[in-house]
Amino acid sequence: MTTSSNPESLEAAAWLAKLEAALAGSDADAAARLFGEECYWRDLVALTWNIRTAEGCSALADMLRATLPHAQPHSFALTGPASQSGGMLEAWFQFETAVGRGTGHLRLRNGEGYTLLTTLQELKGHEEKAGFTREMGLAHGAQRGRQTWTDLRRAEEAELGSRQPYVLIIGGGQGGIALGARLKRLGVPALIIERNPRAGDSWRNRYRSLVLHDPVWYDHLPYIPFPAHWPVFTPKDKMGDWLEAYVTLMELNYWTSAEVTKASFDAALQEWTVEVKRDGRTLTLKPRHLVFATGSYGPPRELRPPGAEDFAGVQYHSSKHASGEAYRGKRCIVVGANSSAHDVCADFWENEAAEVTMIQRTPTTVVRSESLMEIAFAPIYSEEAAANGIDVDKADMIFASVPFRLMADMQRPVYAQIAARDADLIGRLNAQGFMTDYGPDGSGLMMKALRTGSGYYLDVGCSDIIASGGIKVKPRVEIARLTRDSAILTDGSEVKADVIVYATGYLPMNEWVAKIVCREAADLIGPNWGYGSGTRGDPGPWEGELRNMWKPLRHPNLWFHGGNLHLSRFNSKFVALQLKARYEGIDTPVY
Amino acid sequence: MTTSSNPESLEAAAWLAKLEAALAGSDADAAARLFGEECYWRDLVALTWNIRTAEGCSALADMLRATLPHAQPHSFALTGPASQSGGMLEAWFQFETAVGRGTGHLRLRNGEGYTLLTTLQELKGHEEKAGFTREMGLAHGAQRGRQTWTDLRRAEEAELGSRQPYVLIIGGGQGGIALGARLKRLGVPALIIERNPRAGDSWRNRYRSLVLHDPVWYDHLPYIPFPAHWPVFTPKDKMGDWLEAYVTLMELNYWTSAEVTKASFDAALQEWTVEVKRDGRTLTLKPRHLVFATGSYGPPRELRPPGAEDFAGVQYHSSKHASGEAYRGKRCIVVGANSSAHDVCADFWENEAAEVTMIQRTPTTVVRSESLMEIAFAPIYSEEAAANGIDVDKADMIFASVPFRLMADMQRPVYAQIAARDADLIGRLNAQGFMTDYGPDGSGLMMKALRTGSGYYLDVGCSDIIASGGIKVKPRVEIARLTRDSAILTDGSEVKADVIVYATGYLPMNEWVAKIVCREAADLIGPNWGYGSGTRGDPGPWEGELRNMWKPLRHPNLWFHGGNLHLSRFNSKFVALQLKARYEGIDTPVY
Repeated sequence: MTTSSNPESLEAAAWLAKLEAALAGSDADAAARLFGEECYWRDLVALTWNIRTAEGCSALADMLRATLPHAQPHSFALTGPASQSGGMLEAWFQFETAVGRGTGHLRLRNGEGYTLLTTLQELKGHEEKAGFTREMGLAHGAQRGRQTWTDLRRAEEAELGSRQPYVLIIGGGQGGIALGARLKRLGVPALIIERNPRAGDSWRNRYRSLVLHDPVWYDHLPYIPFPAHWPVFTPKDKMGDWLEAYVTLMELNYWTSAEVTKASFDAALQEWTVEVKRDGRTLTLKPRHLVFATGSYGPPRELRPPGAEDFAGVQYHSSKHASGEAYRGKRCIVVGANSSAHDVCADFWENEAAEVTMIQRTPTTVVRSESLMEIAFAPIYSEEAAANGIDVDKADMIFASVPFRLMADMQRPVYAQIAARDADLIGRLNAQGFMTDYGPDGSGLMMKALRTGSGYYLDVGCSDIIASGGIKVKPRVEIARLTRDSAILTDGSEVKADVIVYATGYLPMNEWVAKIVCREAADLIGPNWGYGSGTRGDPGPWEGELRNMWKPLRHPNLWFHGGNLHLSRFNSKFVALQLKARYEGIDTPVY
Repeated sequence: MTTSSNPESLEAAAWLAKLEAALAGSDADAAARLFGEECYWRDLVALTWNIRTAEGCSALADMLRATLPHAQPHSFALTGPASQSGGMLEAWFQFETAVGRGTGHLRLRNGEGYTLLTTLQELKGHEEKAGFTREMGLAHGAQRGRQTWTDLRRAEEAELGSRQPYVLIIGGGQGGIALGARLKRLGVPALIIERNPRAGDSWRNRYRSLVLHDPVWYDHLPYIPFPAHWPVFTPKDKMGDWLEAYVTLMELNYWTSAEVTKASFDAALQEWTVEVKRDGRTLTLKPRHLVFATGSYGPPRELRPPGAEDFAGVQYHSSKHASGEAYRGKRCIVVGANSSAHDVCADFWENEAAEVTMIQRTPTTVVRSESLMEIAFAPIYSEEAAANGIDVDKADMIFASVPFRLMADMQRPVYAQIAARDADLIGRLNAQGFMTDYGPDGSGLMMKALRTGSGYYLDVGCSDIIASGGIKVKPRVEIARLTRDSAILTDGSEVKADVIVYATGYLPMNEWVAKIVCREAADLIGPNWGYGSGTRGDPGPWEGELRNMWKPLRHPNLWFHGGNLHLSRFNSKFVALQLKARYEGIDTPVY
C-alpha cells in the first residue's frame, strides 16, 4: 500500500486513527463526534450486512452501536495520498472487520467527517484466487483414474439437476451473469436459469438497430474487461456474443431454454422448492437462496385502452418489438415518450413507415449522447479517466462515495451545463410540441433513472427526427379509446393507425415475485428502485438507499439483483459476498 | 513518455543522439564506430523489412548502408530511465522511420554499443484504433437503410467466397488465430482455413489429460489477455474454448471444416490460386498472400519399420493418439523419447496398460515443470514479473533483445541451476537407463527447441513413472523389425506389443508446401527452425536468426507463421505489419 506524508494525508490518517480509537473502545458517540453536523456514513455490507446510509451524528451513532459489537472495524490505513480541493479533503483507505477486509473513502470538511464510505471487499479465509494465488489448474504427476478439467466440468453440469445449487438465479442477462461469475469465483454453487436458447439473447432479441446507449468504459463486466479496441458503443448482437463467450469462459452453470414457473419457501427448512421448465420437462430444484435477476424491472406494464378489441390493426407492448420492417408504408402509433418509445419510433421511421406518431403524456428528459459522454461520464468513465488512473473499479467507488442525499445537488450543475449544450435540440423538440424537463428538480437523467427507472431518452438519433417533424408528437394526451382503424385521444383528436405499440414500461420486480411465488410475498417486499425522494414515481418517506436492490428483502432468502451494466457490475460483488457469508455459515446480522 | 536524468539515462540518451546524428548523415561507418568490437544490431522489420541480426561493426555498417536510404531512422528517445548492472547499461527507446514508428532496446558496455534491438511497431497513417482512437461503433442519428453491425458482419462473411481475401491463412490454431487477429485490427482482409469443425479443436483433439506445459504468463494471446484468475496451467479443452471465443470476439473470418488442397502462384499476376474443400464442395480462392500457420511443424514424420505389415496389433503416429483408454491391460510400445512420447506413455500408464515401453534412440533434455517456472520463466514470465511492471509485451521485448549468438551462453548458467535442482530426478531416470542431456553445449531445453523444435520433455509427471520403473525404457536402440506380436530391437532384444505408437515427430513446415504447392517450392524454401548453430539437427552455416519463420521466404508471397504461444503472439505482429505494408503499397525492400 502506498503511504504518503503530504499534509492532507497526515490529516486524513490522523482522523482515521481517532476514528479507529473510538471504534476500538466501542464508543459510538465519540466516533460520531468526529463528524460534522451534516454527515453521512454509507456502508455497503461491511458493518451492517446491508446497504445503508446513516445521516447525521445521531443516526450514525445508532448504526455504530448496533453493529460495532460484531463488526469490529479496525486497521484503517490510507491506500494512497489524500487530496484537497474546494475545501474538501478526500482520501481512500482500507480497513478490516472481524470477518472481512474492506475499502473506503473519506471526505473531511473543516477537519470533520463529512462523508464516509465503507465497503466489504472480501471475507477472511474466503478470498478469491487470482494473480499470486491463482489455481495451478493441474495436479502435477501422472495419476491413474485422473479426472480432467473436462471430466469435472461435465460432472458438475450433469449433477445440476440432482445436486442442489445453493443459489438459483432467475434470469441470465447481464445481471444474472455478473452475479453468477462472482459466485463462481467465490466457490458458491449457483445455477442460472435463462428463458432464451442462447446466453446473450436478451440483447440479440431486441430491435435490430440497437446499440448500447452507454459508452464502453461504463459497461465492463467483472473479471474480463472489454479489450482496448472495443467500440465506444457496442452493437446489441456483439454484446450478445460477448455475454455468451463470458458464460463459457467463466464456466458458469447456465441453463438455456429454461424457465422458472413456480417457487415456494419452506421457512422451517430454509429452502426453496422451485419448478423449472426445461426442454419441455419440469424439474424441481431446492436452492437455499433465490435471486431475481430479471433486468431492472418486472413484467411489461400492459395497456389495453377502451375499444382495443375493435382495433383491426396490430397492437403489442414494446418489449415484443423486434423490427419495424413489416410496417413499411403503414401508419404507426407509439404510446409513451421514453427510451423504448423513441427506439421503436426511430425503427418505424427508418423502415419508412407512412406515418409515425408518438403519444406523450408527461415530459421526457432528453440528453444527447455526446453531451452525456462529455459532461457526465467523462470525469470517471472515459478514456481520459482511465489514462488518469481511474479504472472501472475506482470509478465505481467514486460514484458509490456520494450519499443519495447529496446526489441531486451534485447532478444539478451537470445538467445546467448539458442544458446549455443541448439548447438547440431541446428548443426544436419543444417547437414540435415535444415536452422536455430535467426532472422535477433539474437533477437530470440519472436521478430519474434511480428514482423511477424511466422518464428519459439518451438521444442517439431519434430526437432529431422528431425535431424535424419526421415523427409526429401528440403531447399531454393519452388514448381515450380505439376504433377499427384509429386512436381517439383525450383531446378529441383522431390518429389513424395500422399498428399501435405500447411503450408503457414495466412493472417493478416484485411483480415477478407475485407471478412466481405469491402475491403476499410480492406485497411484503414492495417495489424496487427509488430512494424516497418524494418526487413523482418515488414517494417518501426518505430511504437514503435504493429500495430492495442488492440487499436483504423483507422476505427471507430472496434477493433482487439487476440494473444497468454499471450497477449490476458493482453491486454483484456485494450480493455475492452476502450470499457467500451465508453459504459459509458466517453470522450476518442485518442492520 | 517518461524522461529521466539519472546518469545512466544521460549516457544512453547521449549515445542515441550520436547514433541519430550518424544515421541522419547516412554515415554507416560513423554509426558502426559507436559500437564495440563485439556488437549486434537485431532488426525486426523496422529497417530491413526482414528479421536480421548484423554481427560485428562491418556487418552492421553493411546493413545500414543498404537500409538507411529508405528506412531513415530518426527521433530516437528514451522511453524510461536507463539502468546499469554488471557493467552493462540498458535502455529502452522509441524511434521513427520514414514510414513507421518503432521501439527498441540498447545495451552499452564501456560506453560502446553492445546489443541494439530495433522493432517496427506501427505504420504511420495505419495505426491500430484502440483506446483514445477506438471506433465509435455507431453512426449516431437515425438513418434509413441502416446497415447494422450484424448486417455488415453477415455481408462480409457471405462475400468471403467471392470477394478475395488479401491473405489466406492455412491453419486456424493459435498461430493462425493470433495472426488473423492482428490483420483484422490492421484492416487487412484475411481468411483463416481450419480443418476441424470448431475453432480450438486443434487443442481439444489431443489426448485427454493434456494441459498446457507452459504457464499462463507465457501463453497470452494479443488483445485479450487471460483474466487474473486463469489457472497457471490451462487444460486443453479450456484452451480450446478460449480460442473459439477469441475468434468470435475478434470477429475473425474463419472457415471451419475446410481444407486447402492445392495452391499455385501466378508470378505475373502476383496472385495465388488456392483450392479449398469446404463442406464437401471445392472452391477456388485468389489471395495475394498465402500463410502456412500449421503450428510449428509440417506433416507427421511417419515411420514404417521392416515387417510393419506383419504386425497384428495397432500402430499409428502419435499425432493420431487421442486416448489410451482402449489399451487397458495391453502391451504398448512408444517409439521416441521427447514430449509426445512421454505424454503418450503416461496416458497408457494412467489407463493401466499391462506394459509400457519407451524406445529411446538419443538423449532427452528433461526439466521439471516447477524448475523451469522458478528458474527460467520467473524473471520475465511470472506473477512477480508482472507485479514488477514486466507485462507480457515487455517480457517479449526483453527476450527479443538478446541476439542468437549470445543466447546459449545466457542459457547455460540457467541450466546449471536447473541441473542442480533436478539432480535427484535425473539420477533416478539415468538409473533406469533413460538417457538425458542439457543439449550438446549445456544450453538446455529452449535452445533445443529453437534449434530443432524437439529433443526435450518438460516434465509434468511422466518422468517419475519412468524413474520408478512404471514405464520401461529401451535406450540406444531402434526397432530393427516387427513380428506378428513384437518389436525386435537393434540390440537383438524383443518386446511384445499390442500397440505401437510412433512418437517420431514432424517434418519441417516446407513439407506442407511440397504437398500443397509443389516439391520445387518446398526445396527452394528449405526447412524452418534452427539458426545454423552447427549442433545436431541444426547444421551451419551460421544464420543468426531462425530459418524461414515470420519473414520473407525465397518463394514470393508465401509465409510461415507459428511456434508456441509466445513466439506466435510476438511474431504475429511483425508478420502482420509486413503484410499490411504490402497491402497498402508501401515499399518494402527486403535486406
